[in-house]
Amino acid sequence: MAGSTFGNIFQLTTWGESHGPGIGVVVDGCPAGLALSESDIQAFLDRRKPGSSRFTTQRKESDCVEILSGIFEGRTTGTPISMLVRNTSQKSSDYSDIASYYRPGHADYTFDQKYGFRDYRGGGRSSGRETIGRVAAGAIASKLLAELGITVTAYTQAIGDIEIPDIDRPMEMISIEEARSNPTGMPDRETSLRAEAYLKECMERLDSAGGIVTCRVSNMPAGIGEPVFEKLDANLAKAIMSIGAVKAFEIGDGVKVSSTNGSSNNDSFRMCGRKVTKATNHAGGILGGISDGSELILRAYFKPTPSIFQKQDTVNRDGENITIQIKGRHDPIIVPRAVVVVESMTAITILDMLLQNMTARVDNIKRFYGK
Amino acid sequence: MAGSTFGNIFQLTTWGESHGPGIGVVVDGCPAGLALSESDIQAFLDRRKPGSSRFTTQRKESDCVEILSGIFEGRTTGTPISMLVRNTSQKSSDYSDIASYYRPGHADYTFDQKYGFRDYRGGGRSSGRETIGRVAAGAIASKLLAELGITVTAYTQAIGDIEIPDIDRPMEMISIEEARSNPTGMPDRETSLRAEAYLKECMERLDSAGGIVTCRVSNMPAGIGEPVFEKLDANLAKAIMSIGAVKAFEIGDGVKVSSTNGSSNNDSFRMCGRKVTKATNHAGGILGGISDGSELILRAYFKPTPSIFQKQDTVNRDGENITIQIKGRHDPIIVPRAVVVVESMTAITILDMLLQNMTARVDNIKRFYGK
Amino acid sequence: MAGSTFGNIFQLTTWGESHGPGIGVVVDGCPAGLALSESDIQAFLDRRKPGSSRFTTQRKESDCVEILSGIFEGRTTGTPISMLVRNTSQKSSDYSDIASYYRPGHADYTFDQKYGFRDYRGGGRSSGRETIGRVAAGAIASKLLAELGITVTAYTQAIGDIEIPDIDRPMEMISIEEARSNPTGMPDRETSLRAEAYLKECMERLDSAGGIVTCRVSNMPAGIGEPVFEKLDANLAKAIMSIGAVKAFEIGDGVKVSSTNGSSNNDSFRMCGRKVTKATNHAGGILGGISDGSELILRAYFKPTPSIFQKQDTVNRDGENITIQIKGRHDPIIVPRAVVVVESMTAITILDMLLQNMTARVDNIKRFYGK
Amino acid sequence: MAGSTFGNIFQLTTWGESHGPGIGVVVDGCPAGLALSESDIQAFLDRRKPGSSRFTTQRKESDCVEILSGIFEGRTTGTPISMLVRNTSQKSSDYSDIASYYRPGHADYTFDQKYGFRDYRGGGRSSGRETIGRVAAGAIASKLLAELGITVTAYTQAIGDIEIPDIDRPMEMISIEEARSNPTGMPDRETSLRAEAYLKECMERLDSAGGIVTCRVSNMPAGIGEPVFEKLDANLAKAIMSIGAVKAFEIGDGVKVSSTNGSSNNDSFRMCGRKVTKATNHAGGILGGISDGSELILRAYFKPTPSIFQKQDTVNRDGENITIQIKGRHDPIIVPRAVVVVESMTAITILDMLLQNMTARVDNIKRFYGK
Repeated sequence: MAGSTFGNIFQLTTWGESHGPGIGVVVDGCPAGLALSESDIQAFLDRRKPGSSRFTTQRKESDCVEILSGIFEGRTTGTPISMLVRNTSQKSSDYSDIASYYRPGHADYTFDQKYGFRDYRGGGRSSGRETIGRVAAGAIASKLLAELGITVTAYTQAIGDIEIPDIDRPMEMISIEEARSNPTGMPDRETSLRAEAYLKECMERLDSAGGIVTCRVSNMPAGIGEPVFEKLDANLAKAIMSIGAVKAFEIGDGVKVSSTNGSSNNDSFRMCGRKVTKATNHAGGILGGISDGSELILRAYFKPTPSIFQKQDTVNRDGENITIQIKGRHDPIIVPRAVVVVESMTAITILDMLLQNMTARVDNIKRFYGK
Repeated sequence: MAGSTFGNIFQLTTWGESHGPGIGVVVDGCPAGLALSESDIQAFLDRRKPGSSRFTTQRKESDCVEILSGIFEGRTTGTPISMLVRNTSQKSSDYSDIASYYRPGHADYTFDQKYGFRDYRGGGRSSGRETIGRVAAGAIASKLLAELGITVTAYTQAIGDIEIPDIDRPMEMISIEEARSNPTGMPDRETSLRAEAYLKECMERLDSAGGIVTCRVSNMPAGIGEPVFEKLDANLAKAIMSIGAVKAFEIGDGVKVSSTNGSSNNDSFRMCGRKVTKATNHAGGILGGISDGSELILRAYFKPTPSIFQKQDTVNRDGENITIQIKGRHDPIIVPRAVVVVESMTAITILDMLLQNMTARVDNIKRFYGK
Repeated sequence: MAGSTFGNIFQLTTWGESHGPGIGVVVDGCPAGLALSESDIQAFLDRRKPGSSRFTTQRKESDCVEILSGIFEGRTTGTPISMLVRNTSQKSSDYSDIASYYRPGHADYTFDQKYGFRDYRGGGRSSGRETIGRVAAGAIASKLLAELGITVTAYTQAIGDIEIPDIDRPMEMISIEEARSNPTGMPDRETSLRAEAYLKECMERLDSAGGIVTCRVSNMPAGIGEPVFEKLDANLAKAIMSIGAVKAFEIGDGVKVSSTNGSSNNDSFRMCGRKVTKATNHAGGILGGISDGSELILRAYFKPTPSIFQKQDTVNRDGENITIQIKGRHDPIIVPRAVVVVESMTAITILDMLLQNMTARVDNIKRFYGK
Repeated sequence: MAGSTFGNIFQLTTWGESHGPGIGVVVDGCPAGLALSESDIQAFLDRRKPGSSRFTTQRKESDCVEILSGIFEGRTTGTPISMLVRNTSQKSSDYSDIASYYRPGHADYTFDQKYGFRDYRGGGRSSGRETIGRVAAGAIASKLLAELGITVTAYTQAIGDIEIPDIDRPMEMISIEEARSNPTGMPDRETSLRAEAYLKECMERLDSAGGIVTCRVSNMPAGIGEPVFEKLDANLAKAIMSIGAVKAFEIGDGVKVSSTNGSSNNDSFRMCGRKVTKATNHAGGILGGISDGSELILRAYFKPTPSIFQKQDTVNRDGENITIQIKGRHDPIIVPRAVVVVESMTAITILDMLLQNMTARVDNIKRFYGK
C-alpha cells in the first residue's frame, strides 16, 4: 500500500534510490516456463540508458542487470524474479547543495512534508532511475506477450509543438527503426531533425521541453479488462500516470472526444469475413473498459524536465525565500528515455489483465480442469 | 480483482444492473464516529438523478437510498455501510430489441466476448446507473473530508466547443450555485445558455455531445500520496478513467505541459508568512505523486453519449452487417449528470490516500500509541 | 482492509449487524455461466438456521435470501452477486441491558477499545448472524466446485470430550445423512446421543460446551496453492480462524505431528496404475503449501458459547466491578450451526485458489489464448 | 497474488531459491524515521543460522545481509528497504540426484504438478532458506514494535513428547537467556537436556523429530485487529501456517477449548486500579478478533524434518515405484531454527495490524490532521 508494488497477478515491486547501492525489482507471479535470460532484460534497459545522445544526460550509467532468482535452466520457474542493477557512477557531492532547499517542479518539498526528511541525493526515490525496475519487468512482460502474438510499441509523437505528421496513420506505416535510432524517439526523420533543433535551442536558453509519447498494442484479444473499477483503460491510466512527469493520459481520441458528436465518435461494427471489426477506432480499442479486439492506442503527456539551469526562485528548509541555480547533468527533455518506460508499463498492465481474464467464465475453468 | 471494489482503506464495492432488483454499494473501512444519515446520501444521489432538465432522460428514477448497516444512533460504527437503491421504473421491453445486436460505442460486444453472454437490459452492469453506488460512497467521503476542512467541487467546464471563460480563475470566483442550478452544470449563466442551445441543436440532429468536467480540491494538506505506483495523481487517474465515457484525464496544466518549457512550467516556491506556497500552480497541486498543499485541479474528458437516434451500421450476434436505429430515452449528453460522479470518485480517492498517509512516520505512530 | 472482504479472485464482502435492517454479502468475481437460483443459496442458509433443535436458540429466524444482482436468465453473468437477508425477529429490548457492561468471552470490550463505542444490540457485527453472508457465498462456491467434481463436506467430530469413533476413517464410511439429521452434526448416531445427553447436562448447569468440526475435500486436483505466503493451508487457516469462536486450526495430523518422527509422518508416494498416490495422508493433502491430489482434511476447534446463564464477574463502562447474569436465548454450543460455516469458508478458499492457479504456467496461458 | 508478498501496510516480498545467487526481501511501507542498520538485521539472521549445534545442519552459511535501499543517514526513509543475502556455501552436486524423484514430505511433487518442472536444487523456493527474508523483515518489525514498548518472544515449548514444565507460567518466569543459549531453543535447562538426548537418539535411528514453538507478545495495546475476516488471530494463523512444516496453529488455550465449558473458559473482566484487566487469559489476548490488552499467546506445531536418512518408498518422474535414501546435511529437527521465524512472522503481523488500526476512528483522524 506504500505503493512500490504494481499489478494483481503479474506483480512487480520496485526499490532503490538514485544514490544508494543499487536499484531493483522483484517480479512475482510470472508464469513458469518462459525462456528468459539477462540479455532479454538488458536489451530493454539499454533503451533507457543515458548518454546516447546530446539530449540525454552525459552521466555514465552502465546499468548492468543481474538476475538473482526465479530462473532455472533458462526458464522462469513461477517463483519471484529478483533483478538488481548496481548504482555505479553516482557522486553524492554533485547533489549536496540541494539538501537545504526545495527545487521547483521536484518532489523535494512534498517528500519532506510526508516523511519529515528525505534522501536528497539525486532525487532519491523520485529519481528517474526508479524506472529501471519498471523497464526490467516490462522486458519480461513484453516477452510473454510476444508469445501470445501481442506487440506493444511506444514512440515519441511530439516534442514541444513539433509533432510527427498524421499521428493516426496505421502502425504499418510507423518506422520503429527510425524511432529507435533517432535521438528524439520519433519515427520520422524529418520531424526528428526539427525537434532536435528545437531542443538545441532550449538548451542554449538553459531551458527544457516537454512532449508526447504514443503507445500502441497490436493483436490485442477482445474481452480483456474488467467492467467497473478495473477497466483496462483505468488501469492503463494509473500505470502511465504513475510515471514521473506525466500530467495527462488519453485513450483513443482522448481529449478530442469532448468536442465531437456521437454520430462521428461512435465506431461502427462491420464484419470482415467472419470476424467482427470496427470501421474506425475513435475508442482506441476499449469499450466499457474491455478491449474490443482492435488496436489499443494511448498517449502520455510529459512535462518539461524540471531541472533547468536558469536562476529560479524557491524557499529553503529554514523558510527563507532564495534564488537558486541548479548544476549538474540533466536531460533537457524526459521523453526520449521515457518511451521504453511507457511501453513497459503498458505491457505490464496488459499482461496482468490478460491473466485476470482467464477466470471470467465457468466453461473455461471446467475445460482447464479437465471437466 | 473482478473489479467491483475500489480503494485500500476506505473501500467501496458496487453491485447491480440497470434492470435487476436494485443497485447498491458496500462501504467498508469508513472510520467510526461520523454523523451520517440517509439524507446525507440522498442529497448526493439527487444531483445525479435524471429528469431534472430536457437534456437528461425523462425516465422517472426516484432512486431512494436505504442504509442497511453500519450506522448506530446516527453515527458510523466502523463496520461496513451497505446502501441499497431499488430499481423502480425500468421496463425491460424498452430494451429487448438490443439483445441481438451490438450498439456502436457501447460495451455490448465486449461483454459478449468476455463472458459469453450479457444482461442486455439497459446496459446491464455498464449502465450509468452503476454510478449510484459511487455517488452514495462519495457522499460519505465528502462528509468526512468536510470534517477535515477539505472541499471537493466539480462542475462542467465545456460542452462541445463551448467553454466557460477563464477556466483557471480562482475557486472563489466560481459560482457553485450557478453550476448546481444550470441544466448544463456550468458555473456561468451565459455560457450555459449557449451550451443549451448547442445541445438543443444536437438533439434536433438526433445526435449527442461530449464535454469536460473540472474538479478542484481546496484545503488539501501537503504530503498525501505515495511516491511510486500509488501516486495521488495516478490513483485519481484510475478513479476518473473508471467512470464510463471518460477518455482522457489530466492534472493541473495537463496536456498543455507537453508544449511548454521548464522555465514557465515550474512553480516557484515562495514563503507566505510562515507557510510555504507556490507562486503558480501548473502542477495542479501534486509534485512527485504527493500533494504539495496547493489546490488540486483535475479534468475529465467525456465522449458524447453513444446512444443516438440516427441510423447506425453495426453487426448482430449472428455475424451479419445490419443497420439499426436506437429508441428509448437517452440523455444527449452525459456530462451534467456525471459532475457529481467525478466529484465522488475524487473525494473517495483523496480520503483513501489521506488515511494511508497516517502511517508514514514513526514519530506519528509513537504519538498515536502514546509513546 | 477493514476486513469485510475475503478472497482474491472469488471475493466476498459481508456486511450487516444482528439488529440492523439486514445482513448480506456481495460476491464479486464469480465466473459467468453458473446456473444459480435463490433456492441454491437458501438450502445452505437453512443448514445454519436456529430453532431446529433444543440445542440451538429458539429465536425464530426465517432468513430468506433475496438475490439482488448478478444473475440473468438463471445464470451468473460474471458481475457481482448481491444477496440480502432481512433481519426480522430481532428485539432490541432483549439486549438493552448489555449496553453498559462487557460480557466475558465476547467482543464488547474490544469493540469499545477500537471504535470508541459499539452497536451493542445482539453482538452487532460480531453476532453469529454475520456468518449468513459467508454461507450464502459458500453455497455459490460449493456449486461451482461441484461442476469441477470437487466436494467439500464438514461435520462435527467432537462435542466436549465426546468424539466420534475412528476419526480418520475414509470419507465413504462417513454418513452425511446422519450428520445432517442429528442435532449435533455428528455422522454417528450413538455418539450423537451421548453428546446430546452431555449438552442437556451443560444446559442444566447453565453452562455451555465446545467442540471440533472436521472438513474434508474430495477430488482435489494437485497443484493448488502458492508456495510461500499464499499456501493453501495458510489461507485455509485464515479462513477458518476468521470464524468467531475458533481458537485452533490444524491440517492433516495437525497438533499430533509435533510428537511423531519423520519416518512415520512422511507419506510415501506410490503409483496406483498411472496415477501418483500416497500410501498414507498424514499431511492432509498439502505439501509445501500446494495440494498433492489426495484428500484435504482440516479441523477447527471451537470454544464454548461465551453467553452462559450463570452469574459472572465483569466490569461496566464506568470502570466498576460488577456481577452479571446474561438472559435471552443462546445456543449452549456453537458447533452444530457452525458446520456449514466451516464448509463454506473451506469451499470459498479452495475455489479462490483454484482460480489463482490457472495462470501458473505459460503453456496453459498460450493454450487459453489460442497460441 | 503468487504469494511472495505478505502484509497490507508493512509489506514484505521475499524472493530467492536455496541454490540461486541469493535470497532476499523487499520491505515496503516501513514508516520513516526508524534508526536501522545492518547489524539490527544480522542479529536476527544469526539466530536462524545453521551450524550452531549438532542438531542443526553443519553447512556453513555465513548469511551476511546487505541493505540495498531505504536507509539514509541511519534511518528508514519510508521507501522500500531491499535486503540481500548471497548464497555462498551451496553445492548443487549434493542435490542432483533428487532431480528425478519425489522426496516424501517435501514439495517436489506438488511443484512439478503446479509448474511443470522445478528448481530441484536444495528445495529451491521451498527451502528453509526462504525464511531468511522473513527474519530480516521481522528484525525491522521487532525494532519498531520495541519503540512502541511491545515485545515479541518465541521459544521452544516441546520437542517430541518432551515439554517444558508449566507451559502457561508468566513470561517473567521464562528465561530467554536459556532459550537463546540452549541448542533446543527451550527456556529450561533440564528439559532441554532431555530433549537433546531424545534428538541424539532420533539421529542414531536416522530419524527426525517435531515440536512446538510458543510465541508471546507483551504490552499489546487493546483494539488491534479487524472484526471479520482480518481478525488478529486469523492473520496470525495465516502468518504462522505459511511457515513450512507448521501443521497446526492455536491461540490461547487453543485445541483445549473444545473440551471445556463456558464457565471455565470465559475470562472475567476485573478492574486493576483504573485499568480493565482479565482475571485469566484463556482467550490468549484476543476477543472477537481484536486484542484485549492482555498478553498474546500462540503456538505453532511443527512436523518432523521430512529429510531423513532411512530408506523410503517413493516414485520417480517416470512413474516408477522406487526406494531412495536421502544424503546430505539435514537438521534432525526444524524447531530450534524456526523459533526466530515464528517470532518474526508474529512481529510482522502485529505491526501491520497496529498500523491498520490507526484509521479506525474519525476523532483520531481529525486529531492527526490538526482539526
